[in-house]
Amino acid sequence: MKALVIEKTDQAARLVVRDVSNPVPLPGEALVKVKLAGICRTDQELVKGYLDFSGIPGHEFVGEVVEVNSKEDPDRELIGQRVVGEINCGCGKCQWCHAGLQRHCPHRTVLGIAGKDGAFAEFLTLPLDNLHVVADEIDDKTAVFTEPAAAALEIFEQVKISPHSKVLVIGDGKLGLLISRVLQLHGCEVDCIGGGEHKIALLQQWGINAVHHSHPIATRYQFAVEASGTPEGFNTAIKSLHPRGTLILKSTYAGKLQTNAAPWVINEIQIVGSRCGPFAPALNLLRQNMLDVDSLITAIFPFKDALSTFEAASASESLKVLLDFSKID
Amino acid sequence: MKALVIEKTDQAARLVVRDVSNPVPLPGEALVKVKLAGICRTDQELVKGYLDFSGIPGHEFVGEVVEVNSKEDPDRELIGQRVVGEINCGCGKCQWCHAGLQRHCPHRTVLGIAGKDGAFAEFLTLPLDNLHVVADEIDDKTAVFTEPAAAALEIFEQVKISPHSKVLVIGDGKLGLLISRVLQLHGCEVDCIGGGEHKIALLQQWGINAVHHSHPIATRYQFAVEASGTPEGFNTAIKSLHPRGTLILKSTYAGKLQTNAAPWVINEIQIVGSRCGPFAPALNLLRQNMLDVDSLITAIFPFKDALSTFEAASASESLKVLLDFSKID
Repeated sequence: MKALVIEKTDQAARLVVRDVSNPVPLPGEALVKVKLAGICRTDQELVKGYLDFSGIPGHEFVGEVVEVNSKEDPDRELIGQRVVGEINCGCGKCQWCHAGLQRHCPHRTVLGIAGKDGAFAEFLTLPLDNLHVVADEIDDKTAVFTEPAAAALEIFEQVKISPHSKVLVIGDGKLGLLISRVLQLHGCEVDCIGGGEHKIALLQQWGINAVHHSHPIATRYQFAVEASGTPEGFNTAIKSLHPRGTLILKSTYAGKLQTNAAPWVINEIQIVGSRCGPFAPALNLLRQNMLDVDSLITAIFPFKDALSTFEAASASESLKVLLDFSKID
Repeated sequence: MKALVIEKTDQAARLVVRDVSNPVPLPGEALVKVKLAGICRTDQELVKGYLDFSGIPGHEFVGEVVEVNSKEDPDRELIGQRVVGEINCGCGKCQWCHAGLQRHCPHRTVLGIAGKDGAFAEFLTLPLDNLHVVADEIDDKTAVFTEPAAAALEIFEQVKISPHSKVLVIGDGKLGLLISRVLQLHGCEVDCIGGGEHKIALLQQWGINAVHHSHPIATRYQFAVEASGTPEGFNTAIKSLHPRGTLILKSTYAGKLQTNAAPWVINEIQIVGSRCGPFAPALNLLRQNMLDVDSLITAIFPFKDALSTFEAASASESLKVLLDFSKID
């Protein structure tokens, strides 16, 4: 099959297109034919060396189950179904897996991020338990937003946010916009700091207060979400908070954070790291078309243009760029 | 009156003994004659330039009310009483003061730390509302621990810690030991990382697992408390946590923290800055002699030896060093 691969050399990592063997599903796994995959900022960080990953990246996808390595009838009924998939694959035996928190299993692999080839290929494998069937009302280009929408919803799994809170979101990338949107749906008044004209226009269209990052922050917040992926965003978030405020940290990036921790203590700030989230409520919101993800799609490229697609995805005005595997040759 | 003063020069701060005017209580304030005052790590940081403080440091004290600027009978009954005092003086008008959180009032002064002369002098002033009468069963050298004991108890005001949690405390200074002790009283199994032989012996005497900082950490914790006052302590705390673990940050110091924030997100770590705490429960524990603070006193010096006292307080094996104002001549 054709795949996009991060190859490590002595000096650096690079992204190339390769012909590789099809993956083979282990017992309890499915083979999924990828239909559409989304490029995430994490993928761009992986290419820069984040997490020292080599192999096939990609963890946002919608696809069709073409094979299952199981003799159980309910499992076999998945064949031919359209699915999205949770990306963390736990050992199934530890306390984390037993608590339903495979995403924290110390022995886990993570699709396209750690120890497991990902979605930028014609086929991928995932445990059957990770798959969620996609309702017919959700089209492919909407379904591919399930993983980032779940990551946005994870905030409510971790932090009790009163709907009458005013919340600051830092970063108007794909995740920052999705987070702004789910906070708005929760009832909160949301200010979102960004820089892109098109993105600011979209926020305003949604009724969210868009603040250009060159403007000083005029108020203090009980909650701030850092989704800009930069150390500057972190320090802005800390400064924006009320005493006893909470910073929800969504950004991961290669590189160090340099900061002054004394204000965290003096102002009794809480910082909450937040990662992957629940797929079922994300699919609910997508099915009801609550997230307006159509407005987040900058372009859909055929797989043959995969390398230039990565370039398009890193343009500053770019939002979600999708890779279409239906047009593979 | 005689006072210990941090004086700023162009180059640096320095600690000197000076004859200064007695402070005058504002309306609603008391004049307190200091009996005994404790030296805290924060005082040592102030001398190094932390918070750019100049004036009389000192915020741990017990004293006697000698004058009140109030005509109200209940206020005047305080004259002659032995008191300890909360150190944050709010404006009394803002939302924080109305919520009983003067410690977060944006217009506050803080005794011996910010905008208000402190306890390393014969007299200090504080608002009457900040004072707590000390029960007869609590002697002076016990009462002077009220402020740091309250800071230790603040952890339970902020974080729900199950008594069956195993907790790591990093730092075997005065605050680290008090925190270890209140966690032990809460029912937790406590491991405390430190370096001092005498302190490790004291922890073992209390039944707390003392771990020398040169030893690798053999387990993972749901909660870690950083009270070492060093960036290394912070990074050790992060590494010691389970996924979804909580780091309670007690250390304040001048200088930057350099760290890698990606593991906070990947492991969904929470970081909780924690500062001053509630005096009433601290006095309860001290009255019942639950904190064994006698074991934390390294030395009591007369005020005339104040400068060498600061040196004694910074010796690595030193715990609490007290200044006695009864022998002032």
